[in-house]
Amino acid sequence: MTYCVAMRLNEGLVLVSDSRTNAGVDHIAVFRKLHIFGIDHERVLVIQSAGNLATSQAVITLLRQRIKQDEGRHLHNVGSLFEAASLVGDTLRDVLKKYKEQDMDFSCSLLLAGQIKGEEPQLYNIYPQGNFIVSTEDTPYFQIGESKYGKPILDRALDYKTSIEKALRCALISFDSTIRSNLSVGTPLDLLVYKKDSLLVPSGRRLHDDDPYWHMIRTHWSEGLKATLASLPPPPDNYWA
Amino acid sequence: MTYCVAMRLNEGLVLVSDSRTNAGVDHIAVFRKLHIFGIDHERVLVIQSAGNLATSQAVITLLRQRIKQDEGRHLHNVGSLFEAASLVGDTLRDVLKKYKEQDMDFSCSLLLAGQIKGEEPQLYNIYPQGNFIVSTEDTPYFQIGESKYGKPILDRALDYKTSIEKALRCALISFDSTIRSNLSVGTPLDLLVYKKDSLLVPSGRRLHDDDPYWHMIRTHWSEGLKATLASLPPPPDNYWA
Repeated sequence: MTYCVAMRLNEGLVLVSDSRTNAGVDHIAVFRKLHIFGIDHERVLVIQSAGNLATSQAVITLLRQRIKQDEGRHLHNVGSLFEAASLVGDTLRDVLKKYKEQDMDFSCSLLLAGQIKGEEPQLYNIYPQGNFIVSTEDTPYFQIGESKYGKPILDRALDYKTSIEKALRCALISFDSTIRSNLSVGTPLDLLVYKKDSLLVPSGRRLHDDDPYWHMIRTHWSEGLKATLASLPPPPDNYWA
Repeated sequence: MTYCVAMRLNEGLVLVSDSRTNAGVDHIAVFRKLHIFGIDHERVLVIQSAGNLATSQAVITLLRQRIKQDEGRHLHNVGSLFEAASLVGDTLRDVLKKYKEQDMDFSCSLLLAGQIKGEEPQLYNIYPQGNFIVSTEDTPYFQIGESKYGKPILDRALDYKTSIEKALRCALISFDSTIRSNLSVGTPLDLLVYKKDSLLVPSGRRLHDDDPYWHMIRTHWSEGLKATLASLPPPPDNYWA
């Protein structure tokens, strides 16, 4: 399994991905699921992936090869994020074409976030079929993979105007909840924050279990939840008798 | 969809079920999913159901009919909770037998909790195949239906020694998280608390949206979460720059 979340907020983008892959619980490995593209002062593009690893690796490799060969449409020459999403979707469909005779699930889901000079930052959710939707102010975040455990905190605490710093804390809490409830999602986490209009390709940060800040907010959050639960008033007399 | 949680704790049992059923988002109805059986001073048995409504209704109806006819094995004459779980599983298999030729999912999942005089309270998770597992001190709760959104709070706050009063608050918070994130789970909720060794058949309580206590703890919880999130220290300088 995998868990990736991407937020497109007023101040910029916040992206976090886990790095655990598994083929059964007895076959677990670490693979990066957050892939950075771009040219400083011109464009920043980041792809997060969930689903079949062979498929997502093939998509990323093909996208990188086309940039290197600089022939035809590629992520460093498309004119808009919409075109980039379309290119990623097409690449995904191409990769899946050769496996379609086989009765197995080779699909993957992708998130594409970024900014191209002259446009606002955008975030796309690219489905396994290659079509896609874009995030809006009403729906400023997308998740792929194991999304449920970590969704309640996002639904409560996040909106388009949330600062990217607070959104990052919120994303880390969402990962904490997911990691506690599902063994197939695990650290290290790859996180990346992009400030709107900076147009500088960020390097992102890899966050390991021994990261002091990660450890501290996990503990702080857990204690805060328990204290809040303990402070809830008990039911009235005879409420459930 | 459906969400049911059942806890078997040192002090007794805490059970909560939602009541929303749906066949597509345009066909939503209210059906009770928590069914009470028993004889005061002798036995208390409660079944919660998730999955195909026709199947779970047939199972409950057959179990009630057999009690009424008082022939053969039924829930009011079996000698142990284990036998009761076995009877419920067998009844489920019988109901599903006639549909097995059809390529559709008619399955349902059931939780059986209760106490029969001379035994400890017990909680069984009965799978769609009719086999079952029993809860233990290590794993004091089971969920069926839409379990993921509401699991993190249970994983953090609940253990076998949690008081039933606190466990009830914890269960209601788990429902709050689920209801906020999944439209197919909805009020009214049916809740039931059974104090170990009382052997009195509880009537349970139906909790509607306008219930003042439910409203109050939802608000209190939401504010507590937001305050905890706001109080998390921000990342160190250059943490993600």
